[in-house]
Amino acid sequence: MRALEILPVEGIGEVRPGDDLARLLAKAAPDLADGDVLVVTQKVVSKAEAQLVPIDPNDPESKARIVAGESVRILRQRGDLVIAETRHGFVCANAGVDLSNVEDGWAALLPEDPDRSARRLRDGLRALMDVHVAIIISDTFGRVWRRGLTDVAIGCAGIRAVVDLRGTADSFGRELAVTEVCVVDELAGAAELVMGKATGVCAAVVRGVDPSWLGRGDVRTDVVRPAAEDLFR
Amino acid sequence: MRALEILPVEGIGEVRPGDDLARLLAKAAPDLADGDVLVVTQKVVSKAEAQLVPIDPNDPESKARIVAGESVRILRQRGDLVIAETRHGFVCANAGVDLSNVEDGWAALLPEDPDRSARRLRDGLRALMDVHVAIIISDTFGRVWRRGLTDVAIGCAGIRAVVDLRGTADSFGRELAVTEVCVVDELAGAAELVMGKATGVCAAVVRGVDPSWLGRGDVRTDVVRPAAEDLFR
Repeated sequence: MRALEILPVEGIGEVRPGDDLARLLAKAAPDLADGDVLVVTQKVVSKAEAQLVPIDPNDPESKARIVAGESVRILRQRGDLVIAETRHGFVCANAGVDLSNVEDGWAALLPEDPDRSARRLRDGLRALMDVHVAIIISDTFGRVWRRGLTDVAIGCAGIRAVVDLRGTADSFGRELAVTEVCVVDELAGAAELVMGKATGVCAAVVRGVDPSWLGRGDVRTDVVRPAAEDLFR
Repeated sequence: MRALEILPVEGIGEVRPGDDLARLLAKAAPDLADGDVLVVTQKVVSKAEAQLVPIDPNDPESKARIVAGESVRILRQRGDLVIAETRHGFVCANAGVDLSNVEDGWAALLPEDPDRSARRLRDGLRALMDVHVAIIISDTFGRVWRRGLTDVAIGCAGIRAVVDLRGTADSFGRELAVTEVCVVDELAGAAELVMGKATGVCAAVVRGVDPSWLGRGDVRTDVVRPAAEDLFR
């Protein structure tokens, strides 16, 4: 078993609509190497992709309207808190609409297609640096049964999102029944540990992941649980 | 921002009821240092604490009876899958009853009080090695809206389970509304990335965590969401 390193990517300033995020990342992480996993927070991806809408900070209905527009279903509501399903299939607070770390008067939406965003960053870094990395776009979600937020993957490229260990023998030599590990969520959470929320670190490199995890995968198909499988919706 | 290292702890063989787990860990991780976070999987803690019950592999009702005994509430059931609330307040598959990596004829239960187990390991390592580490006991849980399993913390000691970043200014200088990060879950998931399920690696050291996270904390009080806060139970 190899050790993992999690390295913050520092020095990326404020990201603006139309910025070439791959180029900013390449400049800030010049030592990116084949097999690295680069975790990038949703906020900077949304900003670079101009997924921003104006919001009136003096009108409490303004945010509610934006959240409604981003939702395909409202699952629960309690006071200000709306748990909504987005068109991507994510179930999260406020349908991913976020005002923190955004200029006053604007709200950030989730990327239109975060798996596509990840593929574009991967392709961009390959073109710029001749390097083959995996990309995870992360966001901060709550959990139904547990307090506190954790970062999870909302998009990925170049890595299998869920690694299926079914059929691997356990240490008693029997087949493990079901152990499908969502490694992209674990990697997103690990990256968050070196980012903090207010430090301006918007990306981290995870170095040393099992090479067998690298390959095709996306969050939309592999991680989002279809309604038919869902016991709680 | 500091980099993190995640180091597998290798060489711990099969753990048996009554084994001194702190001593086994001290021997396998002789370079443990102050400020390290040691993540230990539930399975070896349960084994050392003799949280094992006999199970008849030929009687399909045998496991169901054990799961019922470990549950305070059954939330959902579909075929073989039971989503139950344990007396600790965890909501998980089969109330944490697990047959993988256990000798035939036995099932492992969750530790009686995983936060206490963590405190004991922390005290044991301090006594044996004169080292102040944080301990996280991890287990593999599913999620309501997302496929794939991730490791989360079921007990901890010496670390604040949820780090409250409320009131920290975002990079635009405004107060962040709510950013309570469940760092123990992110650390448990990060550790899983170097463990795998079938390799016999039952612990990992996370080195380099923010020293301000170290201190008093437990999972039972800080992470388990009380029913009154719960929108989905």
